[in-house]
Amino acid sequence: DSSLKVFTLNSNPRLAEEIAANIGVELGKSSVTKFSDGEIQINIEESIRGCDVYVVQSTCEPGNQHIMELLIMIDALKRASAKSINIVMPYYGYARQDRKARAREPITAKLIADLLQTAGATRVITLDLHAPQIQGFFDIPVDQLVGVPILSSYWSKKGLEDIVVVSPDHGGVTRARQLADRLKAPIAIIDKRRPKPNVAEVMNIVGKIEGKTAILIDDIIDTAGTITLGANALIENGATGVYACCTHPVLSGPAIERIENSTIKELVVTNSIPLHEEKQSDKITQLSVAPLISEAIIRVHERQSVSILFD
Amino acid sequence: DSSLKVFTLNSNPRLAEEIAANIGVELGKSSVTKFSDGEIQINIEESIRGCDVYVVQSTCEPGNQHIMELLIMIDALKRASAKSINIVMPYYGYARQDRKARAREPITAKLIADLLQTAGATRVITLDLHAPQIQGFFDIPVDQLVGVPILSSYWSKKGLEDIVVVSPDHGGVTRARQLADRLKAPIAIIDKRRPKPNVAEVMNIVGKIEGKTAILIDDIIDTAGTITLGANALIENGATGVYACCTHPVLSGPAIERIENSTIKELVVTNSIPLHEEKQSDKITQLSVAPLISEAIIRVHERQSVSILFD
Ligand SMILES: Nc1ncnc2c1ncn2[C@@H]1O[C@H](COP(=O)(O)O)[C@@H](O)[C@H]1O
Ligand SMILES: Nc1ncnc2c1ncn2[C@@H]1O[C@H](COP(=O)(O)O)[C@@H](O)[C@H]1O
Repeated sequence: DSSLKVFTLNSNPRLAEEIAANIGVELGKSSVTKFSDGEIQINIEESIRGCDVYVVQSTCEPGNQHIMELLIMIDALKRASAKSINIVMPYYGYARQDRKARAREPITAKLIADLLQTAGATRVITLDLHAPQIQGFFDIPVDQLVGVPILSSYWSKKGLEDIVVVSPDHGGVTRARQLADRLKAPIAIIDKRRPKPNVAEVMNIVGKIEGKTAILIDDIIDTAGTITLGANALIENGATGVYACCTHPVLSGPAIERIENSTIKELVVTNSIPLHEEKQSDKITQLSVAPLISEAIIRVHERQSVSILFD
Repeated sequence: DSSLKVFTLNSNPRLAEEIAANIGVELGKSSVTKFSDGEIQINIEESIRGCDVYVVQSTCEPGNQHIMELLIMIDALKRASAKSINIVMPYYGYARQDRKARAREPITAKLIADLLQTAGATRVITLDLHAPQIQGFFDIPVDQLVGVPILSSYWSKKGLEDIVVVSPDHGGVTRARQLADRLKAPIAIIDKRRPKPNVAEVMNIVGKIEGKTAILIDDIIDTAGTITLGANALIENGATGVYACCTHPVLSGPAIERIENSTIKELVVTNSIPLHEEKQSDKITQLSVAPLISEAIIRVHERQSVSILFD
């Protein structure tokens, strides 16, 4: 059988090392640096001819840089005769630009899919796409892994009592339901509406939260506005404590400050996006997706179904 | 006939304004900003349905950012039913990654060509490609304009006497010949060779330069090592003064310092890449390519040959 190689780019080198160690291979030798004018220079320092190559790269901030690194790496691998080029993208950037919400908007999530395929990607392994429709933007296989089991194990072990799982908006109800099933807990939904334009939103809570410990769940936490305002509304409506979790800790702009000053007791996230120094906080717990991803890579490589990893 | 629109992105807004003014149109209304997490947000604020759209963008530093802006803009224009999407790229970044010089290198110049076409570009208008072969990387029309006439007019007006045009390396002899023909001057070549590995290069000058005023010409000046060392060699070999010119002032890293401390009296460049504050110097003169590019756009739009602009 052809041999399996794991390469990393610059977004998630630690995660890639963990994945390689789990699989029992050395990380592929390569360097990704910049020329003096900022152009990306990639050197692949070992033969990959005929190999099944897995490239680990989230397109998190600096997203444009990470996308270009990935595209150039795919081009180099293709020209170096890789047998297959499998993109392991724990966080798929630009996933919120997945439809034309207004006239003349781009659909950048589709563009990224096209660019990856044009460069030469033959498969994508990803985690919790913001919209599952993004799978359909590709003409190559896309394995979408799910973060809920990792989050749910953590909460189970923590042993909180009288839990309610809360979706911060309508879009996240399915995800909240998945977590609630695993925790054998009820769900609630924060139902936002704006009575008139330019009037503050009203947060109405659908479901019983009084006297309960709430766990908010979302796929992405970006500026943390939604989640921290949601937490306040839960406390005001009688929740005794609020915890939160998400798969992708984008945490841009005021996010860390908002979380630290919020009523949220603990935020649990995965390492689909690494937390650099300025994004660390005593309130944040980070769980590794390396075991999940390594298992998926091994299954793909051995031509076994990965659907077992979906729940 | 369908109407002509000119849009700018963030690399060359001033040049785009000049081009629009020359053509006699208003610059298309759009905004290119960033979301909190650094993802690019593009709004096209006027209908472009059925229009011939020209998008001005050099992929100069920050090149990866500028490439992504361009690809996302093309996607938005395509989805908004533009009739044609013409990319005006005065400087084509990644042009030096145009072949596999070593094993397992990417050919990023070809990748960029593929990405532009995948996004939906229908034509490229560019200037002095680092390698003319890059035209062949595209399956859409590429009009390559030439910077030599602009540089040569400047030198003619300046009225230097007893000139010799010098190519800083073998690769640039054709370009030096083009400038020399226009200035009715002879040429010389700086012939570098490395006697042994890890021994300094020896610069031998082919052609008569003693007692003459030398004008060095290159397509790109990046860190300015080649050009400033070349200038020293010319002075050491008896040139009475050294001037230099290029189309694309990349000028990264130590370039400005090197030029200021060099024997070069004046460096003449075009605005294919804008010179931001930190790249300005009393020694540098910048000439506009707006008249050349506007003429090319009008000719393309009116279905006239642009080959007249090539010399
Ligand atoms: N990087 C981003 N940061 C914030 N908002 C975004 C980003 N990308 C897209 N959007 C906007 O988010 C909305 C889609 O989010 P959603 O409704 O949660 O799917 C659209 O209005 C997009 O314009
Ligand atoms: N942005 C860049 N800065 C410096 N060198 C580069 C850059 N891109 C490519 N190169 C290298 O430049 C060489 C090609 O330049 P040339 O021989 O002038 O065509 C190759 O060895 C490339 O690896």
